[in-house]
Amino acid sequence: MKAYLFLVDVADFQMPVVTIQPEGKRFLASHGTSLIDILVGEGVNIENVCGGRGICKKCIIEVVKGKLSEPTAREYELIMVSRKLRLACQAKVVEDVVIKIPDSSRQFKGRILEHGYIPDFTFSPSLKIVSIRLEEPSLKDQRSDMERLVDALKARSIDIMLLRKLPSRLRKLDWDIDAIIHEDEVLDVRKHSVCPYGIAVDIGTTTVVVYLVRLSDGKMVSVKSDYNGQIIYGDDVISRMTYAVQDSENPGKLQKAVVSTINKLIHEAVKEAGCDFSDVYEAVFSGNTAMLSLLLGIETIGMASAPFAPPFRSRLKLKAREIGIEINDSGVVSTLPVVSSYVGGDIISDILVSGIHKTDGNFLLIDLGTNGEVVLKKGGDIIATSTAAGPALEGAGLSSGMRGMEGAIESVSIDGKTFEVYYRTIGGVEPRGICGSGVVDAIAWMLLTGIIDKSGRISEVETERIVDVNGEKAFLIAVNSQGRRIYITQSDIRNFQLAKAAIFSACIVLMRIANVHPEELSKIYLFGAFGNYIDPRSAMITGMIPEAPLDKIVQMGNGSGYGAYVNLISKKAREEADEIARKVKAIELNTVDGFQQEFISATHFPHSRLELFPRVSKAIERRSPMIDYGQ
Amino acid sequence: MKAYLFLVDVADFQMPVVTIQPEGKRFLASHGTSLIDILVGEGVNIENVCGGRGICKKCIIEVVKGKLSEPTAREYELIMVSRKLRLACQAKVVEDVVIKIPDSSRQFKGRILEHGYIPDFTFSPSLKIVSIRLEEPSLKDQRSDMERLVDALKARSIDIMLLRKLPSRLRKLDWDIDAIIHEDEVLDVRKHSVCPYGIAVDIGTTTVVVYLVRLSDGKMVSVKSDYNGQIIYGDDVISRMTYAVQDSENPGKLQKAVVSTINKLIHEAVKEAGCDFSDVYEAVFSGNTAMLSLLLGIETIGMASAPFAPPFRSRLKLKAREIGIEINDSGVVSTLPVVSSYVGGDIISDILVSGIHKTDGNFLLIDLGTNGEVVLKKGGDIIATSTAAGPALEGAGLSSGMRGMEGAIESVSIDGKTFEVYYRTIGGVEPRGICGSGVVDAIAWMLLTGIIDKSGRISEVETERIVDVNGEKAFLIAVNSQGRRIYITQSDIRNFQLAKAAIFSACIVLMRIANVHPEELSKIYLFGAFGNYIDPRSAMITGMIPEAPLDKIVQMGNGSGYGAYVNLISKKAREEADEIARKVKAIELNTVDGFQQEFISATHFPHSRLELFPRVSKAIERRSPMIDYGQ
Repeated sequence: MKAYLFLVDVADFQMPVVTIQPEGKRFLASHGTSLIDILVGEGVNIENVCGGRGICKKCIIEVVKGKLSEPTAREYELIMVSRKLRLACQAKVVEDVVIKIPDSSRQFKGRILEHGYIPDFTFSPSLKIVSIRLEEPSLKDQRSDMERLVDALKARSIDIMLLRKLPSRLRKLDWDIDAIIHEDEVLDVRKHSVCPYGIAVDIGTTTVVVYLVRLSDGKMVSVKSDYNGQIIYGDDVISRMTYAVQDSENPGKLQKAVVSTINKLIHEAVKEAGCDFSDVYEAVFSGNTAMLSLLLGIETIGMASAPFAPPFRSRLKLKAREIGIEINDSGVVSTLPVVSSYVGGDIISDILVSGIHKTDGNFLLIDLGTNGEVVLKKGGDIIATSTAAGPALEGAGLSSGMRGMEGAIESVSIDGKTFEVYYRTIGGVEPRGICGSGVVDAIAWMLLTGIIDKSGRISEVETERIVDVNGEKAFLIAVNSQGRRIYITQSDIRNFQLAKAAIFSACIVLMRIANVHPEELSKIYLFGAFGNYIDPRSAMITGMIPEAPLDKIVQMGNGSGYGAYVNLISKKAREEADEIARKVKAIELNTVDGFQQEFISATHFPHSRLELFPRVSKAIERRSPMIDYGQ
Repeated sequence: MKAYLFLVDVADFQMPVVTIQPEGKRFLASHGTSLIDILVGEGVNIENVCGGRGICKKCIIEVVKGKLSEPTAREYELIMVSRKLRLACQAKVVEDVVIKIPDSSRQFKGRILEHGYIPDFTFSPSLKIVSIRLEEPSLKDQRSDMERLVDALKARSIDIMLLRKLPSRLRKLDWDIDAIIHEDEVLDVRKHSVCPYGIAVDIGTTTVVVYLVRLSDGKMVSVKSDYNGQIIYGDDVISRMTYAVQDSENPGKLQKAVVSTINKLIHEAVKEAGCDFSDVYEAVFSGNTAMLSLLLGIETIGMASAPFAPPFRSRLKLKAREIGIEINDSGVVSTLPVVSSYVGGDIISDILVSGIHKTDGNFLLIDLGTNGEVVLKKGGDIIATSTAAGPALEGAGLSSGMRGMEGAIESVSIDGKTFEVYYRTIGGVEPRGICGSGVVDAIAWMLLTGIIDKSGRISEVETERIVDVNGEKAFLIAVNSQGRRIYITQSDIRNFQLAKAAIFSACIVLMRIANVHPEELSKIYLFGAFGNYIDPRSAMITGMIPEAPLDKIVQMGNGSGYGAYVNLISKKAREEADEIARKVKAIELNTVDGFQQEFISATHFPHSRLELFPRVSKAIERRSPMIDYGQ
């Protein structure tokens, strides 16, 4: 099996070359080999849930150039969607071919979402390095060390922690220095050719991601992530805020918890990059309004009840040492600005990363993490809102639910005839439960296979997988070796319906306010961990997101983290982020006429108004996950 | 004896009224009563070293209005000086009289110099209190708590420590608040009618004084002082700086030591005033360049050797919490600006308090504390220098020397015939040693009584008080009940000569540079603890300060502390202090031609060039402390 693989520079020109985008990797393949075998054999990241049976339809690839073997029956519906789309498990190599693997066909091993999309911004960090030789003091030049430095650098001030050690530092370096300057303040004086670093941090309600960035060229040199240490005080934003208001000491405890997580990640990142925490001079934080407030130890009491006044909105800047962030003693930290209590810096980041604020067209942006936020852009207007999508999508609120950790079923497909269930767990280990992306898949397939009807009721299908759990019906997904049953109960489906209705009703209300019809959307951007790991088709089939051609749905990864990153490396990005914060209008859904009705209508699968999902409805009728756009 | 004293409002108009300035107290006195008995009996602060014998000539008072009994023989020389000056122990009450007690005739019980002269500045503190009712948030007004506050106050920022608790604070106070604003930053939000306080701090090398000031009206409500906790690391500035450079941890240790002293004094002051440390929002620090640097934990290595570059010169501002000063969490601290490594914020304060920078005339300003600094103002120019006056003047460097603490002989006079020594100790207890002001008195009287000659050599006078101490001659001042001998040795006199020569040569070199003759001086201002407690006549007799009529010599008390005080309460004072710092030119004495020769000439008593001290020379010849100015 290995014989067909060589690097192209030792090529046998009898063998076709398969080029993989966006990786840019090239392989030689024997004529007639299955594409999935080549990809899996070479370690290319691609979904393979049903093991090449052509059932799960998750190994979709796009043919960019050249061609593959003739489509099989399994691929028939896919070909209806687009002649360029193929299933890697069905297609065979017949000649040189360039294929592209879309994000939605990727497996992600770690389930903390680190990667994202980097928009194009000019590299212009706040931090500057200036190499300079200072004039030495003399009896004729009585200036102080501080004046000597500040004058030469045309700076305005100097951090006190640097000033403390400046006299010996200047003399040891013999007045020949690299100065690290942030805006108008000198932060450090070092010997030549040291490289300063910065960190961009996404503080999610559930997870924290730290990106270590080399500030000489903006390169991301290490990414580290972990669960937010605040989780012990509550799973979601509302429970954290409830805890925060119970005692005046509690915001401080929440602050220490997240700072401790961040410091641990900084430590890991600098170790990996081979630098020191004192080489890190700047940190930019993105997150929702509650997370940014609690990072700084700010009370959230005003956010807890109407009229939901946030403590601050503009970008806050302070010294890292003021909040215990362990970077250089003189290091600076800043937050993204926020729009309101429930439209935070993470959404500003998403908008910034997507570029919708400066692109013509109508855009819908959905951030699905522990919370759900929806943004609609039409013309010069951007409106945004948030929804309590909550635990049903995180997996945690369901009978067999769990967070996206090792052993969580993250991907599911069901055979429509046998009701056989194909699944994949995170880490490829024994299943322990099911996480959000697995639930969306499971419910979409239960709908496609008739296990549930449009109202969400579990039907009377003939299979042993319909079981009784504490007096209610449930569909059995798996039983592990310890005999533990993993299932979706009727109540789980009801909870899921509420969650998906919350998201879809937020989308449709914003579209109604802006007078945008679903087919007028140029793109739908999905952000956030859940938004990234779900199969967009499954989400569409359940009616969680508006019906749209797959190529209009773009999974953007960690927008919050990448927004923080571009804020760290680009002045233009900071200016745009501030402008976005001023421009976005936050909508409080409960104050919108007809919102409750929209919410109820959206609890149906896919929706009570089927005209909103014409092609999805047909796919459900056909019992196929392929949605025909007739492209 | 008590029968002659009644308050004037129950007056017997047969009895004369004695009015005391500047106290403004009035007493009834029987005709013919000794003035010193009235003053001492009524607890008025006045010197009384020789117990009314007319020998020490320290109880000089000035007759402002009315007259006293005819002068006695003891007062003869005083009357030559000015007909208005009298000795309180010799004069008797004969009619209504208004007298003024000059500072030089006062006893100071605590020997840490707290009091000073308050120059006239418009009350305009940096700290403002604004009473305001904020608009409450509503669904139509989505501004954050921070914006709501900052917009209403037209402020620019808010301290993070306030922002943390702002949401609950605003809601508890129902949006009806007193805001505390420092420059453009909101520091606190409180209920109405609380009063903010500030502190002015003089950080001396030996002592620290904290002035607690009510910032609603500028009133000084409590003054607390103690020895600088840094003393364990060295007695003088040079030894502190030597310690500071020995290890990179040492500046931090010195910083903690002085901050600990300051915090203890703040605690005592707020307790006395009945307020809380959190009511204190601002602290202004004055002190020499080394003390201000070490307060902030800044290294002093550049100051330790030529070209003596200070770490900073301009006024530094930071948060109290950055240096551990225990005032309100959001409180701000600032330093006075400095001129050079050895002309510090204390000297800027002295100049500011004296007003010489805005008064026509030629002024000499001498600050005698643990260090000596001299300032000369002529026309628009102010030049300044410092001298290593050192331990001989603090008492600490002498055989029987000690700091000005309980049991220190602080005032001395000697009977020219019997060589009987009259002295007073601090606290009126058994003598344990002699402090600086006692040494100056002792040496001046040894000169007047011929015990030492003009070269400083102890003569062959016939008295048992000339004793042998370890093979060298010494003059015995006292023997206490434990048999401990307190004396001035020949070596002590030599050390004193070096110290007084350092001060005088600094004065004469500055006068030479500015081309000012001693008789052209409008005033000589004496600042600092030693400058305040010495008898100016004794200092003049030894040739420590230029010869000048007594009424031209003004003892100004703690200029550093009062300079900090006016900086705390007046914007104009801050502007003037900054202007003074830019304007003053520091002179490095060692670089001035002929300085060494001047120094050597000044070691003689009073000086080798007697034309500099014509009247003092005559007084020495006459063996009288009264210097005849023929006024």
